Amino acid sequence: MTLNPQLNKDGALKHLLTIDGLPRAILTHILDTAEGFVSVSEQEVKKVPLLRGKAIFNLFFEPSTRTRTTFEIAAKRLSADVINLNINASSQSKGETLLDTVDNLAAMQADMFVVRHAQSGAAHMIARHVAPHIHVVNAGDGRHAHPTQGLLDMFTIRKYKGEFHNLRVAIVGDLLHSRVARSQIHALTTLGVPEVRVIAPKTLLPTGVEQMGVHVYHEMAKGLKDVDVVIMLRLQNERMRGALLPSAQEYFKYYGLTPDKLALARPDAIVMHPGPMNRGVEIDSAVADGKQSVILPQVTYGIAVRMAVMSILAGN
Amino acid sequence: MTLNPQLNKDGALKHLLTIDGLPRAILTHILDTAEGFVSVSEQEVKKVPLLRGKAIFNLFFEPSTRTRTTFEIAAKRLSADVINLNINASSQSKGETLLDTVDNLAAMQADMFVVRHAQSGAAHMIARHVAPHIHVVNAGDGRHAHPTQGLLDMFTIRKYKGEFHNLRVAIVGDLLHSRVARSQIHALTTLGVPEVRVIAPKTLLPTGVEQMGVHVYHEMAKGLKDVDVVIMLRLQNERMRGALLPSAQEYFKYYGLTPDKLALARPDAIVMHPGPMNRGVEIDSAVADGKQSVILPQVTYGIAVRMAVMSILAGN
Amino acid sequence: MTLNPQLNKDGALKHLLTIDGLPRAILTHILDTAEGFVSVSEQEVKKVPLLRGKAIFNLFFEPSTRTRTTFEIAAKRLSADVINLNINASSQSKGETLLDTVDNLAAMQADMFVVRHAQSGAAHMIARHVAPHIHVVNAGDGRHAHPTQGLLDMFTIRKYKGEFHNLRVAIVGDLLHSRVARSQIHALTTLGVPEVRVIAPKTLLPTGVEQMGVHVYHEMAKGLKDVDVVIMLRLQNERMRGALLPSAQEYFKYYGLTPDKLALARPDAIVMHPGPMNRGVEIDSAVADGKQSVILPQVTYGIAVRMAVMSILAGN
Repeated sequence: MTLNPQLNKDGALKHLLTIDGLPRAILTHILDTAEGFVSVSEQEVKKVPLLRGKAIFNLFFEPSTRTRTTFEIAAKRLSADVINLNINASSQSKGETLLDTVDNLAAMQADMFVVRHAQSGAAHMIARHVAPHIHVVNAGDGRHAHPTQGLLDMFTIRKYKGEFHNLRVAIVGDLLHSRVARSQIHALTTLGVPEVRVIAPKTLLPTGVEQMGVHVYHEMAKGLKDVDVVIMLRLQNERMRGALLPSAQEYFKYYGLTPDKLALARPDAIVMHPGPMNRGVEIDSAVADGKQSVILPQVTYGIAVRMAVMSILAGN
Repeated sequence: MTLNPQLNKDGALKHLLTIDGLPRAILTHILDTAEGFVSVSEQEVKKVPLLRGKAIFNLFFEPSTRTRTTFEIAAKRLSADVINLNINASSQSKGETLLDTVDNLAAMQADMFVVRHAQSGAAHMIARHVAPHIHVVNAGDGRHAHPTQGLLDMFTIRKYKGEFHNLRVAIVGDLLHSRVARSQIHALTTLGVPEVRVIAPKTLLPTGVEQMGVHVYHEMAKGLKDVDVVIMLRLQNERMRGALLPSAQEYFKYYGLTPDKLALARPDAIVMHPGPMNRGVEIDSAVADGKQSVILPQVTYGIAVRMAVMSILAGN
Repeated sequence: MTLNPQLNKDGALKHLLTIDGLPRAILTHILDTAEGFVSVSEQEVKKVPLLRGKAIFNLFFEPSTRTRTTFEIAAKRLSADVINLNINASSQSKGETLLDTVDNLAAMQADMFVVRHAQSGAAHMIARHVAPHIHVVNAGDGRHAHPTQGLLDMFTIRKYKGEFHNLRVAIVGDLLHSRVARSQIHALTTLGVPEVRVIAPKTLLPTGVEQMGVHVYHEMAKGLKDVDVVIMLRLQNERMRGALLPSAQEYFKYYGLTPDKLALARPDAIVMHPGPMNRGVEIDSAVADGKQSVILPQVTYGIAVRMAVMSILAGN
């Protein structure tokens, strides 16, 4: 009934590639399932046998200790066997194509590929290519999507705010290069957040961002006014070297989240950041470590959300 | 009764270093044992407890994501604890000798070393050196041997052809630098294949290859005639840079396996390749992905064969 | 009752950061606990479920295959989930602070951090920072301490000599740069060894070493006289390049442990070395492989001692 490559013919989740196009019921099912896994990580024995004997391959074509670690922990808490592959020096340099590499790993009876790749669309290409029993999770592809990050952000918002239908959410910073922001926007609009704002200088906004259903602001003073949730984006250092930005100091002055600027939001507003943070660039330490910050709970919930995604896709 | 360093005094397998000199009964026992493990990898829970609590060290002195991964998966499906060691930058650079490194790891109560090394004979040297309760598997040493690859190739041939005694097998390509070919030839002749052919330009044939019991061909047209099995070898890119070969295009023209050339073999001939493939160099994509190709089943069977070897050597 | 950051308010071990300041009862408790784990590593199934479902992070900011491997094996024999993080290229290069990295990993519900860092005090800083339920083990920080190495040395001495109160122990070599020596001296004096000697050229002795309760010698002939235990230290190659030492040959002549020099010690003296050895620099092969050498048993006992430390800190 659907052409969505992430869903099987019964409408159940087969791959998690992007939040774009996923029905609200699927997102809610993931968040509800994650709810049950939060407590697993708080037990003495942080383990459930849901993926026992399953082989999960972390295929990281781009280095990322942090994201790889969260998937590894989530898989181990589900009792899966995890194989970490940092694919640069070896197969790729031996002239093998990406799809040959994937075919070979699939032939080792993989159950799931968690894929991080510098090129947008890599996870989709792999999902289209693999046999039906193999599940693909996009752990970040180029500037395109990072759906588990988007989902853990939604989980965090729901934990602190209870509901989505009455929220004002602002996403601040380098939206142009951010796969995280794209996933967040799709998730927020799908889950019924009535007002999603983006705040950024023109040089860091993708063209046509308004068509994603967001309100565009260029000034923090206006954009942060009365919001319930502030999501800061990481500003990658390499952006400063190009022509996009004058300097880190300048950026911090206009778009860095300081206590003063945060005071414009609602008093109970929460502050989020996908990490790793550049303190003093996009966020002030007083805010990062302040009482409105939920940045570390995001990490904690990220494990539960990834456990939920993996168990929904491949659970025994 | 035997001086074969791979066998104990009862004639049972203690190490797997090379196929050269192993009796047919041992090879057949490994293949028969692997037969039982094929189904393990197809179960929902891909795990058996045969090596539970055993410590298996992957000692890779030469990088190889693919081979290391197959051993890691095989060990995990047998419930062993696997420790991956990529030994370059650390111990070796600290001036420690290879045997001191091995002694140290052995002192951590290792049960098995899976060794990949650029130098021929490295696995033998380690096997001679370690205490009797430690088992060594050669995962490729220099140009010498790669016995588990040879065994998985035999397993694949038996799966598709049923028997060995009535087969014509051709091995095509860079035999000079190939430890894989050497292991295949020993396995094929030991298992009773009556006609083993090698097809290669003179510059890529080791001197005295005829003494291994093979028929030498320099032309595909003659060598492929009526064979049941075609085994293509990988042509390493670095060979092209030296004086051995004119160019990849030239090589492909004369020795690349195309549908036309494959048509000279028996209509039910199977095509094998140890991977990673250089499409358009030693093999045409139409053949690699064609219906006679069993290249991906080789990978699948490779897991079962490695599980068989490991469980025979160290099973509880 | 105590300000020792390693102990909780009941005086039980919370972190293992340094042997300096730990009461004798704690050291003895670790050694006694390790005694029970020696046999685990000798079983067919080398596993106990004491840390099942615990998440142990090996945080190695400095490469060390050997030490990382011993902790990994120890953790796996206790049935913990181990996550290896070699932190250089990734988070640190992304501009994140050390404590932000630690906070993030802690938020993934880590139970223990095993920390190796080039800077003295790194493990202490992390221990001060983390939440109370997280345990920190110092696996070597700068020139400061390497307490599990010190403990495994004590375990080895007790195994071979039975008691501490009647021993003469000599530590030979580069004490200036050695975190190992510092940990050994604290352990030996705490456990009641009446005479601890250090033997080194002046350029390789830290100022004020006498205040640690040791006797200083500059000549092997005098320092080794009648000792029960000789602990050789590794001489790092990079020391030779500076002004501290004339050459490796020269060093070996004066301070390298040869059979001749060892003959000055008691006939039943044991020889120890933390590894990796530089044969022909600080130790002669005839001694390293001789019958007084207990260098490989040190490695074996190192696993048991690390299992003891981990299970005391975080056991279910």
